Amino acid sequence: MIGPELERLILLLGKLPGLGPRSARRVALHLLKKRGQLLQPLAQALSDADEKITNCDHCHNLDTANPCLICTDKGRDQHALCVVEDVADLWALERTHAFKGRYFVLGGLLSALAGITPEQLFIPQLIQRAIEENITEVVLALPATVDGQTTAHYVADRLREHNIKATRLAHGVPLGGELDYLDEGTLTAALQARRTA
Amino acid sequence: MIGPELERLILLLGKLPGLGPRSARRVALHLLKKRGQLLQPLAQALSDADEKITNCDHCHNLDTANPCLICTDKGRDQHALCVVEDVADLWALERTHAFKGRYFVLGGLLSALAGITPEQLFIPQLIQRAIEENITEVVLALPATVDGQTTAHYVADRLREHNIKATRLAHGVPLGGELDYLDEGTLTAALQARRTA
Repeated sequence: MIGPELERLILLLGKLPGLGPRSARRVALHLLKKRGQLLQPLAQALSDADEKITNCDHCHNLDTANPCLICTDKGRDQHALCVVEDVADLWALERTHAFKGRYFVLGGLLSALAGITPEQLFIPQLIQRAIEENITEVVLALPATVDGQTTAHYVADRLREHNIKATRLAHGVPLGGELDYLDEGTLTAALQARRTA
Repeated sequence: MIGPELERLILLLGKLPGLGPRSARRVALHLLKKRGQLLQPLAQALSDADEKITNCDHCHNLDTANPCLICTDKGRDQHALCVVEDVADLWALERTHAFKGRYFVLGGLLSALAGITPEQLFIPQLIQRAIEENITEVVLALPATVDGQTTAHYVADRLREHNIKATRLAHGVPLGGELDYLDEGTLTAALQARRTA
C-alpha cells in the first residue's frame, strides 16, 4: 500500500552505501517528517552538487573549481605529490594537516582480476606530471591491501625509471591501539621499524 | 579544502538517521560517482515525494491520495481499526497481510516527561472516529515500552467508556528466538500465556 513515489524514494535511498531496505524506509519517513528542515534542503543540495561539483582535470579531486583549489594553491609545496586511491583518502590526509604538497587521485587500484590497467588509472599522466613539474617526492598513500601494494610497487617502479623518489606510509601500531587486537603482520612491521624511545 | 556545496551536502546527509559525519562523506562521494544512476534520480525522487506525498487527514498515513488508499479501500473490514505509533509500524503490519481492517496513526506516544497530551496525538479524534464508524474492535499495536503501554491503557480506557472493545498484541517468544537471549519479562509473559501444544 505504498505509493510509487515513496517506493522509488525508498529504493534509491537503499542504494546508498551503509543503508539497507529497512534503514531506507526509516530515512524516508524521517525526511517526510522534516520536509522544511531536511527533505527540501537535501533535494536542493543534491541538485547544487550535481550542477557545480566537477572532477579536477589535473588531479581528479572533486571541487567547484577546475583546476581545484589544492592544485592552484601557491602556498603548497609544488614539488611533493601524494598519490591516493580515492577523494575520501585525500580528505582524510587533509584533515591531518600533515602533508603540504599536492595530490593525484587514482580513482581506483590496479587489479588483474577486475582488469584495471595503468591507463585506466591515469598512471601514465601521473608519471608525465611528475616529470613536467619536477616533482622530487611522490608519497604513495595507498591502502595496505594486495591491490594497494601492487599499485604502489608499479607506480614506484615507473617513477624510479625517471629518477623520481617514491615513498610510502609507515606501517605500525595505530594510536590508541591495543597490541593483542592487532594482526601479526602489523605487529611484525611495527617491531621491525622500531625506534629508540 | 571542501567547497561549500559539498560541505552542505555532507552536513545534510549526516542528519539522516543512521548516518554519521564519516558515513555522510562516504555517501556524498558515492553519489558524485554515480550521478546519472543515483544522484540525479534521488534529487528528483525527493522533490516528487515532497510535492506529492501528504498525510491522510483521516488516519495520518502517508500517501499521494487523501484520504489514503487504505482508508478508501472498500475491501477492508470497516469495523476494525488498528492504532499504531508511526507510519513505519503501519507498513510493518501491512507486510504481514494479517490485519484486514484500517489504521489510525498516532504520530507519537503519550509522555508526561515530553509533555505529549492526548490532544496532540489526535486521541479525541480517534475515539470520535471509532464511535461514528461503529468500530467493533480497536487493535492497539503500540510498542511494549512504558510510554507505549501508558498510551494503550489510556486509549483503551477512553474506548471502554463508549463500550468499544480494545485489544493489544500478544507478548511472547519471537519466532526463531532463543530462550536464553530473551529478557525475563518476555519469558514470564510467554509462560503465563502458554497454550496447549
